[in-house]
Amino acid sequence: MRLWRSLNGWRQLSVGPVSLFYRFGRSVPVSNNRRRQHQRVKLDRGTPVPPASAASPLRDYDSERDASTETALIVGVGPGYGFELARRFAASGMRVALASRNAERLDDLVDELSAAGGQVNAYGCDATDERSVAALLATVTAELGAPHLVVYAVQGFCPGTVLDTEVPAFEESWRQNCLGGFIVARAAARMMVPLGRGSIILTGSTSSLIGREDHLNLAVGKFGLRALAQVLAREVWPSGIHVAHVVIDADVKDSDIFEAGYTQAEPRHLADAVFGLHRQPRTAWTSEMDFRPWNEKFWQHC
Amino acid sequence: MRLWRSLNGWRQLSVGPVSLFYRFGRSVPVSNNRRRQHQRVKLDRGTPVPPASAASPLRDYDSERDASTETALIVGVGPGYGFELARRFAASGMRVALASRNAERLDDLVDELSAAGGQVNAYGCDATDERSVAALLATVTAELGAPHLVVYAVQGFCPGTVLDTEVPAFEESWRQNCLGGFIVARAAARMMVPLGRGSIILTGSTSSLIGREDHLNLAVGKFGLRALAQVLAREVWPSGIHVAHVVIDADVKDSDIFEAGYTQAEPRHLADAVFGLHRQPRTAWTSEMDFRPWNEKFWQHC
Amino acid sequence: MRLWRSLNGWRQLSVGPVSLFYRFGRSVPVSNNRRRQHQRVKLDRGTPVPPASAASPLRDYDSERDASTETALIVGVGPGYGFELARRFAASGMRVALASRNAERLDDLVDELSAAGGQVNAYGCDATDERSVAALLATVTAELGAPHLVVYAVQGFCPGTVLDTEVPAFEESWRQNCLGGFIVARAAARMMVPLGRGSIILTGSTSSLIGREDHLNLAVGKFGLRALAQVLAREVWPSGIHVAHVVIDADVKDSDIFEAGYTQAEPRHLADAVFGLHRQPRTAWTSEMDFRPWNEKFWQHC
Amino acid sequence: MRLWRSLNGWRQLSVGPVSLFYRFGRSVPVSNNRRRQHQRVKLDRGTPVPPASAASPLRDYDSERDASTETALIVGVGPGYGFELARRFAASGMRVALASRNAERLDDLVDELSAAGGQVNAYGCDATDERSVAALLATVTAELGAPHLVVYAVQGFCPGTVLDTEVPAFEESWRQNCLGGFIVARAAARMMVPLGRGSIILTGSTSSLIGREDHLNLAVGKFGLRALAQVLAREVWPSGIHVAHVVIDADVKDSDIFEAGYTQAEPRHLADAVFGLHRQPRTAWTSEMDFRPWNEKFWQHC
Repeated sequence: MRLWRSLNGWRQLSVGPVSLFYRFGRSVPVSNNRRRQHQRVKLDRGTPVPPASAASPLRDYDSERDASTETALIVGVGPGYGFELARRFAASGMRVALASRNAERLDDLVDELSAAGGQVNAYGCDATDERSVAALLATVTAELGAPHLVVYAVQGFCPGTVLDTEVPAFEESWRQNCLGGFIVARAAARMMVPLGRGSIILTGSTSSLIGREDHLNLAVGKFGLRALAQVLAREVWPSGIHVAHVVIDADVKDSDIFEAGYTQAEPRHLADAVFGLHRQPRTAWTSEMDFRPWNEKFWQHC
Repeated sequence: MRLWRSLNGWRQLSVGPVSLFYRFGRSVPVSNNRRRQHQRVKLDRGTPVPPASAASPLRDYDSERDASTETALIVGVGPGYGFELARRFAASGMRVALASRNAERLDDLVDELSAAGGQVNAYGCDATDERSVAALLATVTAELGAPHLVVYAVQGFCPGTVLDTEVPAFEESWRQNCLGGFIVARAAARMMVPLGRGSIILTGSTSSLIGREDHLNLAVGKFGLRALAQVLAREVWPSGIHVAHVVIDADVKDSDIFEAGYTQAEPRHLADAVFGLHRQPRTAWTSEMDFRPWNEKFWQHC
Repeated sequence: MRLWRSLNGWRQLSVGPVSLFYRFGRSVPVSNNRRRQHQRVKLDRGTPVPPASAASPLRDYDSERDASTETALIVGVGPGYGFELARRFAASGMRVALASRNAERLDDLVDELSAAGGQVNAYGCDATDERSVAALLATVTAELGAPHLVVYAVQGFCPGTVLDTEVPAFEESWRQNCLGGFIVARAAARMMVPLGRGSIILTGSTSSLIGREDHLNLAVGKFGLRALAQVLAREVWPSGIHVAHVVIDADVKDSDIFEAGYTQAEPRHLADAVFGLHRQPRTAWTSEMDFRPWNEKFWQHC
Repeated sequence: MRLWRSLNGWRQLSVGPVSLFYRFGRSVPVSNNRRRQHQRVKLDRGTPVPPASAASPLRDYDSERDASTETALIVGVGPGYGFELARRFAASGMRVALASRNAERLDDLVDELSAAGGQVNAYGCDATDERSVAALLATVTAELGAPHLVVYAVQGFCPGTVLDTEVPAFEESWRQNCLGGFIVARAAARMMVPLGRGSIILTGSTSSLIGREDHLNLAVGKFGLRALAQVLAREVWPSGIHVAHVVIDADVKDSDIFEAGYTQAEPRHLADAVFGLHRQPRTAWTSEMDFRPWNEKFWQHC
């Protein structure tokens, strides 16, 4: 592992006026969780909820989409936010594709959601690698259908001052926080624009808006991702693609360790809000909204 | 009426070193629509929607509040946005108080919502007058219960350059767009903080964020309202009061006249989003979100 | 004085449907410091600085204006920032008009600058009173010439939460921080636009950009003043009037009391920067810039 | 050249689970313009400007630094902005180091400034290559002294929509607009912090603040550069290093072709303002300021 890390930076080999810049990387194969698929059983999805009566005044506010015929893709599925996005989308009846560098870590989640009747596949994918993302989209489309909702939820960050930050770490953070968002959002938009529908949600944080001490790597990537969100929204909203940027100004709970006295956002509530963005009717779309717990300071997070 | 207008500015009477600054105003009595109340009949509210089964995976995402036992107050109810807020809140089962300088214009709306089974009262109120707002809150509380959700939806604007703007118009715009918001929000917060729950929604527009040519009066008031929203959120979120600022970067449809080819936000979708803010669980509250139609330019509106 | 304070809020007298809103105010007569004028002596202004040689490469960067033939007006002259603006403008050779509610407090400053050879008059003026400002502009123009540079430096603030803020204090803060800025800037712009030249500088603070806890009154006024700056810049820059907004994110030193260990901005450096804005050539004007000391936290002030 | 372009993207070679990512680059040797140095003659710098008399009231506003003993480094020297920065700094008497990928294009400028008595060297450097920047700083320090003022003025942009943007172009734009700024600013800060003085100026544009249609590549890099500026300012201001971000919301004149009727910022005025930032006393530093011509629309540029 130490050997691997020593190989993981950019290197340069110069011969006369020509240099070769290179780094090694581990390929992340795009493949679904077939093993788990075999174990999947058809489940009764509980007593169906009867539709609201036609006479009900609430009828007008039901979502215009029936999400239960749709496919969602989450890129960057970690404990907390990513896991709860998966649960929320599956709960609505969507087919759900989960992508992560390490798909094996998603086994338990896939089992859980499949057991509850969800149609959920996990895929290995390196979001910063254009070919890996292209393969992901093609595979998901073939196996679950073209995604109607794509969420970019990758975040990479290790704190440090500008003076202490090394170039490979700076580049790598940007690749995770911003370049991957571009590659995924572009692939999604290219697929959605001809269809004239779909939602692309990019996930930001405090550092999307404020460059604080010790947050260089995160802020550079997150500012860039916000720029992408602004440009893409202006470009593809008119084609019917809803691009939105969510700003999570909070710690997100990903375990129960800190529960006592520590302020954290519940990821299932964030996930519900992201799902709500997907369901917004197009005459009143939101391009940006922020989230933090009620008892949290404003703009003091990562 | 012309006489009235000529009286409606601030005046100054000086005697030696002391000046008296004064203006005349018409009092707006706070009283509900009793006439209509007498006509109201108990209505069957349609077949009730059965609650989702406990086994349903969607159960976790149902709102934590049962809005049907709550009271909403909308200050500034005009065709379009205000009317649809009323319809949305009534549709959820909330008791709804509507306040407007001219409550009589709300008669048809009250009749409509009452006929559909809603418990809706309209009140005359001058939001820029502290005493009028205090009377409003007291009356609403007595008649419908203390409000759980208060929306400030007053907006006053006539375009004009800085050079052409007269001081009384400048002051009056600010009083409607900002002072009234302060008076209403403060009264709401004073009532909600001891109870530890409630939502206060302030309504902004493009001019909340950008001071564009010819938008002086609107921008000065809307910037100020946004300042209020930021301060109040920081102060009362920790008491469990959700303060949020919505930025409507769009024309809002208030009739069918411009429908063909003209881009407008559907007010019922805005209203649904405002209701959604009220229902956000407190571990992931939003302080600001924007709205515009899919086919609209960004930040080019009032 | 206590009597006076008790009179100083807005009052309301209602007769049937008509209300009279009124408050008392002390008139601030606009008159210059004639007494001091009599004592003024013609002073030798020291050895004149020879102009840079035509061959000097620095010649191209000399200001395009010769400020020494110009007139400056500062509205809101207090110890610290206002005093140093006066010193800076006088040092450049400008004729300087100082306006304050209480012109007598400016006696020593006028004496000091006059003794150094400056042509400096102090005027009483209530910036929130349109007639007082009109009289001020007329008097200054008659006595010192039409102003080429007008700085609005009034700031009024007493901290407090939204819940604790009374309406008269809210209104009065806004009148000082924003309404006065509008009245002064409009009067200045109306005078400058026909001449096609001039600078109007509006003074903001941390609370111009962020609404922090306990800063309600300041933030509402300062947000509004910033809106005014944005609108007015877009409207009158094309006429050759430079409108700029300076954001002082710092405590400004106004005495030597806190000097040890306490971080403050030197007002003479702020004043020099404001003068620099006035001298900017019009192909590269600045609309907003911020200031704070090197050893200060960002965005943590009033 | 076509061959070269075809080589210039990132490539990937996979063997089993390991991939090699690589691209070719041309090395940019860091060397000064020695040829021109030989031709340089000692020049009389014109009649020196006598210092302002000690009795002059303007004395207090003279810069606290004597720039004529200092060294400036400009990274990214193109016609227009970069050239005029060089002229401005040289005019103040600073030693000036110019860095560009193609130093030969700076020959005429170096000749011009040397003929006027300046001590100016041009260096080839690839700002996106850490080793090239390290060599540049070392060479400049050895030949002209450690820089007191470093300006990052590289900008790379070709317009295009998100859908049409290829990954190598996206990465390359970011490397020029943001990564290079990080490498240069970090190298400068590492040199300046131990000395406790110096200025680092990063150059932004409209796209630093707004992500507009067709401006993806510029906006992602410029947003990131602004994040860097915010973080670095908070980190090194307390060490006495002035980091500032200038936002040029304008076309900058780099030739006389468009002069008639076309609105452009004069680069010599921008350069003068940048020099002014370097001279700001540290009790009132600016972190960000914007520039545009008087007759230009706000926020409509690149």
